[in-house]
Amino acid sequence: MASTRYDVTGVGNAIVDVIASADDAFLARHTIEKGAMTLIDEARAKELYAAMGPGQEVSGGSAANTLAGIASLGGRGAYIGKVADDQLGEIFGHDLRAAGVDYATAPLQNGPATARCLILVTPDAQRSMNTFLGASTLFSKGDVDAERIAAAEITYLEGYLYDRDEAKAAFVEAARIARSAGRKVALTLSDPFCVDRHRDSFRDLVANHVDVIFANEAELKSLYLTEDFDAALASVRAETRIAAITRSEKGAIITSGSDTAAVPADAVEKLVDTTGAGDLFAAGFLLGLARGAGLETCARLGVMAAGEVITHVGARPLVSLETMARERGLVIPPAA
Amino acid sequence: MASTRYDVTGVGNAIVDVIASADDAFLARHTIEKGAMTLIDEARAKELYAAMGPGQEVSGGSAANTLAGIASLGGRGAYIGKVADDQLGEIFGHDLRAAGVDYATAPLQNGPATARCLILVTPDAQRSMNTFLGASTLFSKGDVDAERIAAAEITYLEGYLYDRDEAKAAFVEAARIARSAGRKVALTLSDPFCVDRHRDSFRDLVANHVDVIFANEAELKSLYLTEDFDAALASVRAETRIAAITRSEKGAIITSGSDTAAVPADAVEKLVDTTGAGDLFAAGFLLGLARGAGLETCARLGVMAAGEVITHVGARPLVSLETMARERGLVIPPAA
Repeated sequence: MASTRYDVTGVGNAIVDVIASADDAFLARHTIEKGAMTLIDEARAKELYAAMGPGQEVSGGSAANTLAGIASLGGRGAYIGKVADDQLGEIFGHDLRAAGVDYATAPLQNGPATARCLILVTPDAQRSMNTFLGASTLFSKGDVDAERIAAAEITYLEGYLYDRDEAKAAFVEAARIARSAGRKVALTLSDPFCVDRHRDSFRDLVANHVDVIFANEAELKSLYLTEDFDAALASVRAETRIAAITRSEKGAIITSGSDTAAVPADAVEKLVDTTGAGDLFAAGFLLGLARGAGLETCARLGVMAAGEVITHVGARPLVSLETMARERGLVIPPAA
Repeated sequence: MASTRYDVTGVGNAIVDVIASADDAFLARHTIEKGAMTLIDEARAKELYAAMGPGQEVSGGSAANTLAGIASLGGRGAYIGKVADDQLGEIFGHDLRAAGVDYATAPLQNGPATARCLILVTPDAQRSMNTFLGASTLFSKGDVDAERIAAAEITYLEGYLYDRDEAKAAFVEAARIARSAGRKVALTLSDPFCVDRHRDSFRDLVANHVDVIFANEAELKSLYLTEDFDAALASVRAETRIAAITRSEKGAIITSGSDTAAVPADAVEKLVDTTGAGDLFAAGFLLGLARGAGLETCARLGVMAAGEVITHVGARPLVSLETMARERGLVIPPAA
C-alpha cells in the first residue's frame, strides 16, 4: 500500500468554544444537563449567552481538538469541518492551522454563522456544553476531501456528526473512502446522550464498519443498554477490533481481541476544566496506533495528553505534547 | 451636588484581545517591541496573526478592563467605547455587560471591524501588544454620553485615546463634560511609547486638566524626560493633585500634595501574564477614591486587583475581587 501523508484525518463539527464559569444553581436555573452536550437552537443560544458570565473564546470541536493534540505530539494530521465565512470561522481556521493541522475546507457563504459551544465550567471542573451547530453540519459535495482521507492511516469520526443528516452523510462518505483506500476508521461515541439518540446506528458501525472505537464508561453502558461495565466491555470486545475505554480518574482500558491493557490516569495536581479530556486521549492513542506502537504505549500517550488538557481552561494543549512524551520516555515511532 | 449613579465611567478603545504564547525569537523575527503597545494596520495585523500560534480571545481594552475590575469589586461603573456590528463586537459587549458594567455605545455600522490586540506572551510572563484599532476610534457625535459621564464620581480616560484624532476628540469632550458637572477626571498614561507620542499634550493635561494620574515608572520618566525616578516623582507631585505610580514588583507610590503612601506589591505565587496589571491597579485605586477611602486603602485595593490578574491569562479578573478584598480586611466604603 502507498505510504501515507497523514497519520490521522479527522472529520467533525467545526466549533468555537465560549467558556465561562458557572455554579450549579445557574445550571439548574437554566435547565442545563450537567456534564452533557446538549444541542440548542439559535434562540436558546442567544438566551443562554445573555445570561452567562464573561467568556473566553477558544477553538474547539471534538475531532478538531484531537487533531490539534496529534499535531502537538508531532503527528501529521488533516481536518475536515465546516465553518462560516465570519470572524469565528477565521479564528477556528487560524487556530487549527497554527497548531500544525492541514485544514482547507471552504467556509460556508451566505448561511448560518460558525458553530459555537457555550461551555459552563462548574467549580468541580465539570463542563456542561450547549452547542449551536450553525454552519458546522452544512457540508457540501466535495468538502469530504477524498484525497486527504485516502492519504491518512486512520480516519477519525465524531459520533456527534450523526446528530444532523447532512453531517451524517459526510460521516458515511468519509468512512467509505477510507475503507476503499484500505485505511482504518476510528469512531468516538462522543456523549452518552448522543449514543441514546443513535444507538442502533452506532451498534451497527461498531460491529461492522469501524476498526477502533473510543468511548467512556457512560457511553459504553449506554451503547449496550446495561449498567454492568464488565458486561459492556465484554460486548465491545467481542464486536470490534480495538476498543479504547476511558474511565476518568480510573484511567483507560484497551481491548483488542483477547488482549487487554489497563493504564492508570495521570496524577493531576489541579483539575481546572475537563473539556477536551476525551478528545486528547484519542489524540495520543490514535497517533500511537497510526505509528504502530503497542496498545499500552498508545493508551499511555492518550492518558498523558488528557492529563495535560484538564489542568487548564480550553480543550487544546498549551504545551508541546511531543516534548512531554519525550520527557516521560514514551517513544512515538517515526512515520513509515 | 447631586449624588452619583456611577463610581466611575471609563472611556477607551474597545478591543478584543487575541492572546498567544511566543518566544523571544518570534518577537525578534517579527520586529515586535517587547513589553510595548504598538499600533498596527490591517495588513500587518493579518501578517502577524497568520504567523502567530493558536490564540484565545478575551475582551480587553485598557479602560474596559478597569471597569470590569471595578464591577468585580462591587463598584458601579459605565463604559463608553466603540465596537463594530460584528461577532467580536458582540463578544466585547457581552463580556462587559456580563461583568456588571453599564455599556450602551452603539456599534459602528458599515465600517472597519472591531479592534483587536494581538498579544504575545513570552515565557517571562511579559506581554507585547500589537493593536489594530479598527472601529474603536470612530466615535460618533452622541457616543460620548454626557449623562453617563456627569453621573459618575470619576471619569477615567485612557492615554491611548490620544493616538487617533477622532478618539482624542471623544477624550476632550468627556473631560469637558465631567469638569462642567463638577466631577473628577482621571487619566492613565497607558504606555511609555504613547507618552513619547503625546508628551506635550499629556504634560498640559496633567498640569491643568486632570485630578488623578496613573503611570508606571517608565511612563513617568518618559513624561518628564528624565532617567531619575525621584525627580520625575517630584515633578508630578508638584503638578497634579493625585499621582498613583506603579512599579511592578516594587509596588506602588501615591503622592497627593505633601502626602505620600507607599504600598508593597502582592507576593504572587506564579506570574503567568502581566496583561492588565496597570488596568486592574487603576480599578482598585479608582473605586477606593470614588468612595472616599484613604490613599493607602486605594493603593492596597489596586495592588490586590493587579496581583490577581497577573496570575492567569487575560486582563480581567477571574474571581470576585469584592470577596478577595473582604477576606483581606480591606474595607470599601459604601456609595454615598
